[in-house]
Amino acid sequence: MPPAPLEFWFDLASAYSCLSAVRIGSVASGLELRWRPFLLGPIFKAQGWDDSPFNLYPAKGRWMWRDVPRRGARSGLKMRQPSVFPRHSVLACRVALVALMQGWGEDCVRATFRAEFEHDADISSPEVMTRLVTELGHDGAATVARAQTQPIKDALRAYTDEASRRGIFGAPTFMVGDELFWGDDRLEDAVAWARGERPAA
Amino acid sequence: MPPAPLEFWFDLASAYSCLSAVRIGSVASGLELRWRPFLLGPIFKAQGWDDSPFNLYPAKGRWMWRDVPRRGARSGLKMRQPSVFPRHSVLACRVALVALMQGWGEDCVRATFRAEFEHDADISSPEVMTRLVTELGHDGAATVARAQTQPIKDALRAYTDEASRRGIFGAPTFMVGDELFWGDDRLEDAVAWARGERPAA
Repeated sequence: MPPAPLEFWFDLASAYSCLSAVRIGSVASGLELRWRPFLLGPIFKAQGWDDSPFNLYPAKGRWMWRDVPRRGARSGLKMRQPSVFPRHSVLACRVALVALMQGWGEDCVRATFRAEFEHDADISSPEVMTRLVTELGHDGAATVARAQTQPIKDALRAYTDEASRRGIFGAPTFMVGDELFWGDDRLEDAVAWARGERPAA
Repeated sequence: MPPAPLEFWFDLASAYSCLSAVRIGSVASGLELRWRPFLLGPIFKAQGWDDSPFNLYPAKGRWMWRDVPRRGARSGLKMRQPSVFPRHSVLACRVALVALMQGWGEDCVRATFRAEFEHDADISSPEVMTRLVTELGHDGAATVARAQTQPIKDALRAYTDEASRRGIFGAPTFMVGDELFWGDDRLEDAVAWARGERPAA
């Protein structure tokens, strides 16, 4: 059997998604990767949360900002707690969608995550996103303008609806067909599954 | 610097704690291990939950019962969703305390976890716990009787209070001094930390 495609579901506001975005290319090498931006907000709202669980549960939040930099250091990231968390990521996710359609999405996603979590950039700002895209060698103004058109808005909403329908409850999530893997720490499990490996028991 | 002691905080109702109990001996070989039973109930209550988050958030629960058997298979466990989850674990945690004081606690904890998650045993039952201890070659009736005395009740309460005070919000948790590591998937990080390894960034 050929390996199955691996879907990578992420929100640009999610620190753990940043960890996966940076390392998925090497961990999942040889697999067909499908990058799927979506919004956690509506998913959390359906679970009764109006904020990130890392803010709602302060002990968990304190731990997370120790854990994330520690894990990021393995990929050469210097992550730190941004001045605002979570950032509003609607614009950044839409920009990512445009970039993915044009074939430079992976670079765009990684650059956005690094700007946010290493350099405290406000990724909700059109100016910040315009500059970020420009620095990647693309047309910043045109990309941000296109990100705010109805077809792109609809596409992000469709991914978010699909995430909810398929049982996604957090980010990052990896899907191999209907098999769900939640969390950056399950990336290796998802890759093994996509390659056809199955646990013995 | 000599390696630091590694504290293993677990609740016998916690499926992810079962995963750690079975493998911590080999992963943390050479380290001084301190086994710390505590009750998640009061910790969850303080976060506003009156049940396991895996029951409160059904999508997360569905995933967990896929994830746990998959992870357990690596340690040779055949875990499955018990008919009741979470089990009331007060008695089992008290029995574990008695056994830890007498030097056979690690065997007792592992046997209790396996009875619960492989064979659906009701670990809240004094009869079940008496039989389990007897099968380990110890005095089942005397152990269960001692588990229900005030000093043991107080000791379990003291550990639960300590867990809360030190910022523990879930199980399993590993502590190296004040450094906290949450989740079976952070056992390796905790062991590295106890051995003095520090991330580069």
